[in-house]
Amino acid sequence: MDFSAAEMKARLSRVRELMAGESTDALCLSDEHNVRYISGFRGEPRRLLITQSEIILYTNFRTEPWARAQTCDIEISTEPDAPTDIAARLEGKGVRTVGVEQRVTYSAYQNIQQQLDAYEVKISAVVETARMIKSQAEISYMRTAQKLAERVLKDTLPDIRPGVTERFVGGRIRSLVSEIEEADNCSFDPLVIAGENAWEIHHKPDFREIKQGDMIIVDMGVRYRGYNSDMTRTFCMGSPTQEMRRVYETVKAAQDHALAAIGAGRLNHAVDAAARDHIEAAGCGKLFTHGLGHSIGLAVHDPLLGFGKASRETTLAQGMVMTVEPGIYVEGKFGVRIEDTVVVTTDGCDNLTAFERELITL
Amino acid sequence: MDFSAAEMKARLSRVRELMAGESTDALCLSDEHNVRYISGFRGEPRRLLITQSEIILYTNFRTEPWARAQTCDIEISTEPDAPTDIAARLEGKGVRTVGVEQRVTYSAYQNIQQQLDAYEVKISAVVETARMIKSQAEISYMRTAQKLAERVLKDTLPDIRPGVTERFVGGRIRSLVSEIEEADNCSFDPLVIAGENAWEIHHKPDFREIKQGDMIIVDMGVRYRGYNSDMTRTFCMGSPTQEMRRVYETVKAAQDHALAAIGAGRLNHAVDAAARDHIEAAGCGKLFTHGLGHSIGLAVHDPLLGFGKASRETTLAQGMVMTVEPGIYVEGKFGVRIEDTVVVTTDGCDNLTAFERELITL
Repeated sequence: MDFSAAEMKARLSRVRELMAGESTDALCLSDEHNVRYISGFRGEPRRLLITQSEIILYTNFRTEPWARAQTCDIEISTEPDAPTDIAARLEGKGVRTVGVEQRVTYSAYQNIQQQLDAYEVKISAVVETARMIKSQAEISYMRTAQKLAERVLKDTLPDIRPGVTERFVGGRIRSLVSEIEEADNCSFDPLVIAGENAWEIHHKPDFREIKQGDMIIVDMGVRYRGYNSDMTRTFCMGSPTQEMRRVYETVKAAQDHALAAIGAGRLNHAVDAAARDHIEAAGCGKLFTHGLGHSIGLAVHDPLLGFGKASRETTLAQGMVMTVEPGIYVEGKFGVRIEDTVVVTTDGCDNLTAFERELITL
Repeated sequence: MDFSAAEMKARLSRVRELMAGESTDALCLSDEHNVRYISGFRGEPRRLLITQSEIILYTNFRTEPWARAQTCDIEISTEPDAPTDIAARLEGKGVRTVGVEQRVTYSAYQNIQQQLDAYEVKISAVVETARMIKSQAEISYMRTAQKLAERVLKDTLPDIRPGVTERFVGGRIRSLVSEIEEADNCSFDPLVIAGENAWEIHHKPDFREIKQGDMIIVDMGVRYRGYNSDMTRTFCMGSPTQEMRRVYETVKAAQDHALAAIGAGRLNHAVDAAARDHIEAAGCGKLFTHGLGHSIGLAVHDPLLGFGKASRETTLAQGMVMTVEPGIYVEGKFGVRIEDTVVVTTDGCDNLTAFERELITL
């Protein structure tokens, strides 16, 4: 088990409290991160039923031994027809509403609604809501994940040299991560983006060779016991031009402004604006073409909290963990992005990222 | 562009024909593979509107140049509020029903239903249906993907030796794939599973060292121009025991039976049964704990066609591409899986996999 029984109990209590608050009598989960968050189980198949008095994990006989090893105080069922079993269990318990996850597909929703036709099936985000606030134990895992990522990025730097390709550098990062016994894996396929490729917003590492004068964006993370890290640094191969230096300093200052705007009680949009206003004042507003950051945890993009134009307004609270990653991308030339991950505290934030933020020339 | 204008036109015609057949007047797509299949576009953001007379791709100004380069004969819009624009365009065109994808989330479905409240919004699988039958050009890409995978697996064999870990072997495969300029990427994180680890059905490569006498399952694939390959071979480090040899031959014969059962007009369940019956007759029925295979193409698990117990009954047709992967997993000891990818033909199948099927000892 990755967490103490006390921690798992606290998570379940919190979720039951949130269920009661929105009159969700039963909750039917299948999302891998939601199920892992509440039960500790990280296998397939999986379906988790939660009521105020019961918690049952459905899996199959093949996976059952792992389910037992990864969970505690949870009933495990290998009943192959979970929906029918759930319907039978809920009968006569006074249940009226059954919550399913936001990300359930419409087809799956219809299927559940059909099986549980005696109940009102509705979307519930109580587990996603609970996941927004990280415990001390979760934060300590994320701190470790970040430390591992920094060790890997540091060890990668000597391999970033003229003539090697973006893909080669990405492969080096993957390979270093795979050698770390504590690491589950990379949090995502490392992004290595040289020079003018930065303008292509979803650029995947290709065979472009790194050359003198390139700005190189490296965006990577390591997963530790299920928890992700996410960090971006931009390096210069040789000497930066004046324009590169100016853009780099603008991004760094924008990040400083955003970091200073973070704290419990502040609005997500105000944090995004703090960075965006600075970049706009520097005349680069149109070149900062994405949101400032995202929530992070069991998922690289954890649910409910974002910092883009389209994000729901959210008041930050102690224990939320978010990335802060302003960027400026100059068409046909280069891009700069600097990304740290921070924990929101009562009066500011605790930056998990210790990697050098000054422009490193390679 | 990955395909000729004629091929893309044929795909669109087929989808419009299927739309007419089920009275879907307009189709609103966002799944990456569906959008790529119809438009050629492989970026984000993306939303594709198809009616009998129009086809419009919604993206943003940043991605527009790539959208233009990757598509032809498609209107491209950078309108930020796509649903409102779609509603306006559909007005007065006699549209009654709007199809959305099976995999759309319930929240997204609700959102679309709200924006397009004048229409009946329903689930439509017409693009997924069209994708089931691969064209000659698609099959040629899949053949190339498979050839690349075989080259990588062959080059990996010298690195599978006593003392190296599952993760090391997985890393070698990743690294070899990343060096191939034609390859997009691995089709999925390579699986390398040694000895008793095979019993854990979703085992991820870990630090277990390979030792003399181990059976080692390697399940991997390479993506080429968007199309995936998927192949599994089981090797023995040194001499296999009699039990290992017997199980290996049972799996291989089960695969032979399944391959012989494939052909246009046959049922998916009959193909699964051909392999399963053989394994059951050998007394190992309970140890073949998954479906026989899956459809493959732009997705590693392409939609609508499966070979498991819970799969919808489907009649095979010429041009479908599927994996055939029986396996036997002996608790606490070892597992064997052999997986080929084949194209269904009028009277049998065309096996894309040429890699040695006899037990290779390393």
